[in-house]
Amino acid sequence: MNSLGRLFRISVFGESHGECVGITIDGCPAGLSIDQNEFLLDLERRKGVNQKGTTPRKEEDLPIFKAGIFNHTTTGFPITILFENKNVRSEDYTKQRDIPRPGHADWVAHQKFGGYEDYRGGGHFSARLTTGIVAAGVIAKKLLNKISDNQKINVQASVIEIGGEADLEKGLQKAIDAKDSVGGIIECRVTNMPVGLGEPYFDSIESVLSKIIFSIPAVRGVEFGTGFAAAKMFGSEHNDAIENETGKTTTNHAGGVVGGISNGNDLVFRLAIKPTSSTPAQQKSLNWSSGRQETFSIKGRHDLCVALRAPVIVEAVTAIVLVDFLLQSQQLKRIL
Amino acid sequence: MNSLGRLFRISVFGESHGECVGITIDGCPAGLSIDQNEFLLDLERRKGVNQKGTTPRKEEDLPIFKAGIFNHTTTGFPITILFENKNVRSEDYTKQRDIPRPGHADWVAHQKFGGYEDYRGGGHFSARLTTGIVAAGVIAKKLLNKISDNQKINVQASVIEIGGEADLEKGLQKAIDAKDSVGGIIECRVTNMPVGLGEPYFDSIESVLSKIIFSIPAVRGVEFGTGFAAAKMFGSEHNDAIENETGKTTTNHAGGVVGGISNGNDLVFRLAIKPTSSTPAQQKSLNWSSGRQETFSIKGRHDLCVALRAPVIVEAVTAIVLVDFLLQSQQLKRIL
Amino acid sequence: MNSLGRLFRISVFGESHGECVGITIDGCPAGLSIDQNEFLLDLERRKGVNQKGTTPRKEEDLPIFKAGIFNHTTTGFPITILFENKNVRSEDYTKQRDIPRPGHADWVAHQKFGGYEDYRGGGHFSARLTTGIVAAGVIAKKLLNKISDNQKINVQASVIEIGGEADLEKGLQKAIDAKDSVGGIIECRVTNMPVGLGEPYFDSIESVLSKIIFSIPAVRGVEFGTGFAAAKMFGSEHNDAIENETGKTTTNHAGGVVGGISNGNDLVFRLAIKPTSSTPAQQKSLNWSSGRQETFSIKGRHDLCVALRAPVIVEAVTAIVLVDFLLQSQQLKRIL
Amino acid sequence: MNSLGRLFRISVFGESHGECVGITIDGCPAGLSIDQNEFLLDLERRKGVNQKGTTPRKEEDLPIFKAGIFNHTTTGFPITILFENKNVRSEDYTKQRDIPRPGHADWVAHQKFGGYEDYRGGGHFSARLTTGIVAAGVIAKKLLNKISDNQKINVQASVIEIGGEADLEKGLQKAIDAKDSVGGIIECRVTNMPVGLGEPYFDSIESVLSKIIFSIPAVRGVEFGTGFAAAKMFGSEHNDAIENETGKTTTNHAGGVVGGISNGNDLVFRLAIKPTSSTPAQQKSLNWSSGRQETFSIKGRHDLCVALRAPVIVEAVTAIVLVDFLLQSQQLKRIL
Repeated sequence: MNSLGRLFRISVFGESHGECVGITIDGCPAGLSIDQNEFLLDLERRKGVNQKGTTPRKEEDLPIFKAGIFNHTTTGFPITILFENKNVRSEDYTKQRDIPRPGHADWVAHQKFGGYEDYRGGGHFSARLTTGIVAAGVIAKKLLNKISDNQKINVQASVIEIGGEADLEKGLQKAIDAKDSVGGIIECRVTNMPVGLGEPYFDSIESVLSKIIFSIPAVRGVEFGTGFAAAKMFGSEHNDAIENETGKTTTNHAGGVVGGISNGNDLVFRLAIKPTSSTPAQQKSLNWSSGRQETFSIKGRHDLCVALRAPVIVEAVTAIVLVDFLLQSQQLKRIL
Repeated sequence: MNSLGRLFRISVFGESHGECVGITIDGCPAGLSIDQNEFLLDLERRKGVNQKGTTPRKEEDLPIFKAGIFNHTTTGFPITILFENKNVRSEDYTKQRDIPRPGHADWVAHQKFGGYEDYRGGGHFSARLTTGIVAAGVIAKKLLNKISDNQKINVQASVIEIGGEADLEKGLQKAIDAKDSVGGIIECRVTNMPVGLGEPYFDSIESVLSKIIFSIPAVRGVEFGTGFAAAKMFGSEHNDAIENETGKTTTNHAGGVVGGISNGNDLVFRLAIKPTSSTPAQQKSLNWSSGRQETFSIKGRHDLCVALRAPVIVEAVTAIVLVDFLLQSQQLKRIL
Repeated sequence: MNSLGRLFRISVFGESHGECVGITIDGCPAGLSIDQNEFLLDLERRKGVNQKGTTPRKEEDLPIFKAGIFNHTTTGFPITILFENKNVRSEDYTKQRDIPRPGHADWVAHQKFGGYEDYRGGGHFSARLTTGIVAAGVIAKKLLNKISDNQKINVQASVIEIGGEADLEKGLQKAIDAKDSVGGIIECRVTNMPVGLGEPYFDSIESVLSKIIFSIPAVRGVEFGTGFAAAKMFGSEHNDAIENETGKTTTNHAGGVVGGISNGNDLVFRLAIKPTSSTPAQQKSLNWSSGRQETFSIKGRHDLCVALRAPVIVEAVTAIVLVDFLLQSQQLKRIL
Repeated sequence: MNSLGRLFRISVFGESHGECVGITIDGCPAGLSIDQNEFLLDLERRKGVNQKGTTPRKEEDLPIFKAGIFNHTTTGFPITILFENKNVRSEDYTKQRDIPRPGHADWVAHQKFGGYEDYRGGGHFSARLTTGIVAAGVIAKKLLNKISDNQKINVQASVIEIGGEADLEKGLQKAIDAKDSVGGIIECRVTNMPVGLGEPYFDSIESVLSKIIFSIPAVRGVEFGTGFAAAKMFGSEHNDAIENETGKTTTNHAGGVVGGISNGNDLVFRLAIKPTSSTPAQQKSLNWSSGRQETFSIKGRHDLCVALRAPVIVEAVTAIVLVDFLLQSQQLKRIL
């Protein structure tokens, strides 16, 4: 299903080349001021405007508030936000409809939905759906800032590696030189984490966060704290010594989560983004008409490295999850 | 919360040193034969009996069916299975109650539950809770075998690395020599995967699977297909070329999932298990009584490498998730 | 929360005098043809156009499909439908803002949402939100008709009593004469019910249906089969004798549901609708400004009897619930 | 499914003549003292011990706490409670297996679960499952008493009519004289209701309460406040005039709920219980073996009027629902 969350719930809808993409946010407390301008920075970050390696498709991406806002303030009822699709060139997709693009959902969507799926630009599978998620993230970040006790929870994600290079320019240049696309690694860090969010088992912070992070297109792996490297360590090395009654630990191999519950140290996790499936390089795939494999190259406007646009999406989903945890922890009441 | 699943739902309960641990399985179709003996192999695998590096605590682990079974057959109603805790030595834990063990949930549990938590042996946080999950996994695996169309879905997980070594004996010996604990990497592969399970966004196969996998104690990372290595590849390299109308791909970098949906190729993922937190080595932690950090060593019976016991748990949660997906895909009806 | 359903899920949003009201339908199978004209009849029924006793506020109520429809066909992805609010006269509500209207949610909304609620025309509480539900009902009815096995499930609701009178004209005239509003009783009947929908306890047909029916504004009671009258009967009188292997019963006091599960006889239930809260009669209420109770009369355009507009809403929610049950019963697959 | 609740969730399991019936309560705050003796009064009320018109089957009904309790106190983790079935006479049911009992779930269960259901004593459909619900109700009532602000929420239900008679003795005698069973009406009243619980639409107090109330076996109707009688009133008569800033209303036709939200006045609702399906009178039903209808009479030990045992169950589910609403309203934190 296309919704997620227990007390702070988002539902996404829309298609890349349909009328719009959008999101409904249910469970947002009343009384939060909403100003369209506050959304622009994060929406620009998602577009990767003027950034080398991002798609030339440029949408204005102005959030249109259709419900749940009154007098520029949240009402406590569902907030529905639309983004119109204007800059659409569907003919690119119609032309190559015969060939399911490798790495894309074309083939599985066709199998699952019997050809009724909107295939244009990936339809509902398109990363354009993350526009709504970023908008919900802006609201979630504002809520995190309203938590009373001087504890301004801060969520920050950044690209730490592109195409295997920590020097991002270098990694990107590799792609440009190879006329191919590249992947990357994102790291996210949450500071001023409250103690006690999450639960053992299915509502562990790792469980709930990974669920939403793997819903971001192109994510192939998620690791918390030391992550996969932990598997190579000794226990005495990996364990974080508790220093004092605040729970502060000397090291933070756990990435701020023990037993599924936040321990007040920074929450740290990383995720792997695969190289953009739409590469300018020549590829092979099945041609449905002929029933045979053939060589082709992808048309359309695409990113060389979608990882560049991912940090703001990662921040958004993290903030969304934290708000839900906080509401469940009864630390956030109606904002007055 | 302690339950998970949409149409095939599990709920875990119990504590390591309480009366029992257990599980309730809701939504299991009627008509599946149930024989206690079928559970023993997987339960033994979870215990790691006679395996170098696993805890000397040995419970009999006989599943006691309290509900939902009639005439050795599932009835369609909730199945509740208990495992009694007999071989309990709680005094070990009472002695070291003053010192929250690093890497364990002692400190966070105390903060979150105000000291009311059952701390003995980790209480509800203990990996002993996975006994019920393994039992549910046996039922889920049987259900996967009942799928009609000659397609026997097979789930198999194994340890592929211990303490940084692909030679497992060597990795384990490292821990024994160092009088410390070590972590490991598990790989899981599902063969004969049906096409079309999963959805984009929040019900993607990766989202739903990672949620339950991160609920297994000690998991620190999950990756699908090529995973983190994908971030270093070019798009033309990572994309799997579709060969023919069955959806078979030449390579399987995607690990069998594209756009959140299974493409019929093997589902492949790996997870990182941290070294057992209860290491024989000396460690530092806070002493709640004195308010100061001190050096201590853990008492109790523990594994040198919990990764050794994890494969059967990974298989269990994978089978559980696949059954839920299949029921949602309306491919599994009542078993006749 | 504003969403409901397990595999066929609706989410409502919008406000009476905001930009729009709308609905998102998640889980609708792909391949269902959608034509705007098919929605008009039910939407007209909801408006009660030209019917004595219904509000003079007339909205065009054209469904605008924003997502999930491609080539006039469902795609399997969320369907979002908007209805614009055009014929809005909010000044009526601003004027009487000081006095919470008796029978309306003005007072509780103010307490719960701290004054941030959109109070105009009842805001999110308005029965105008049922426009989206009626549209979802049209889709659900179409799905019910697609069930394969020659069994065309038919849902039909009608007013059987107004203002205590079975002669509806007479009941309505009572209200007009008294310059007051009146309530009514709706009966709903589903013919060609499949056997086996529903479950004991929380997913009983009665539980799931009553939940959604009590979400229709102004409903005060729900009863199945003989309902409250059953409490006055003997067991031998109330029990429905099973006649033959089809499950047909001689009487239908159970209203087609036994043990929470449909038995193949007609599903029958009734609900009580209170008189419209906005009556032309003079009433007393608190004046927030003065802190004292005062006499006033309601401004705005309202129905004398909302029960007249309810049958199509009752049909809609019933069809929605039945589709969800059918999907869970694996009787409906993708429509081909 | 057999679980219900958002933050305070119950899951029922077990069969009438299996090993046990039971319940798991998830989301109960830590720190609540638990004493087996506190459960006995309500469990006795459910049994209707020594009450004319209740079943001669007498179980000891001692709650056995298997999980979630430590040092006689809740831990914050799932609480699992079992009740053993000892006083079982299944041969009664085996004998009459050929004839699906009218009013019971025998026929529908057989259709839905293909004969795999545990039919003995109604199996999972039996009202014996409400034992666990009553135990959860005892815990929920204790939680309601812990709410801080001097507001001791009190839930009280009673039989107000049996067999059509307000004089309960008289109604019961009618059944005894007729050698038949009778139904009844239960009224429930909650005093000291907080303002602001519930939401419009699907989480209205009426929606959530009716869902769980219709899961109690034998309930055929639910009405709030004036209920069905409201349909015969004028609006000016039915509307409750708000008297002052506390929200107190002069009348309480709304039963304490407006727009789905509690207004601080007493929450009042009634439900209709059908006559016990197992009547001593002769009845007709299908004989599966012969394929023909025949006359028979029910064997086994049964109640003449199950309504007598229902009030404590109604109190339990009401308290359970209110605790969930309160947790969602963030009015109840961890109990210290």
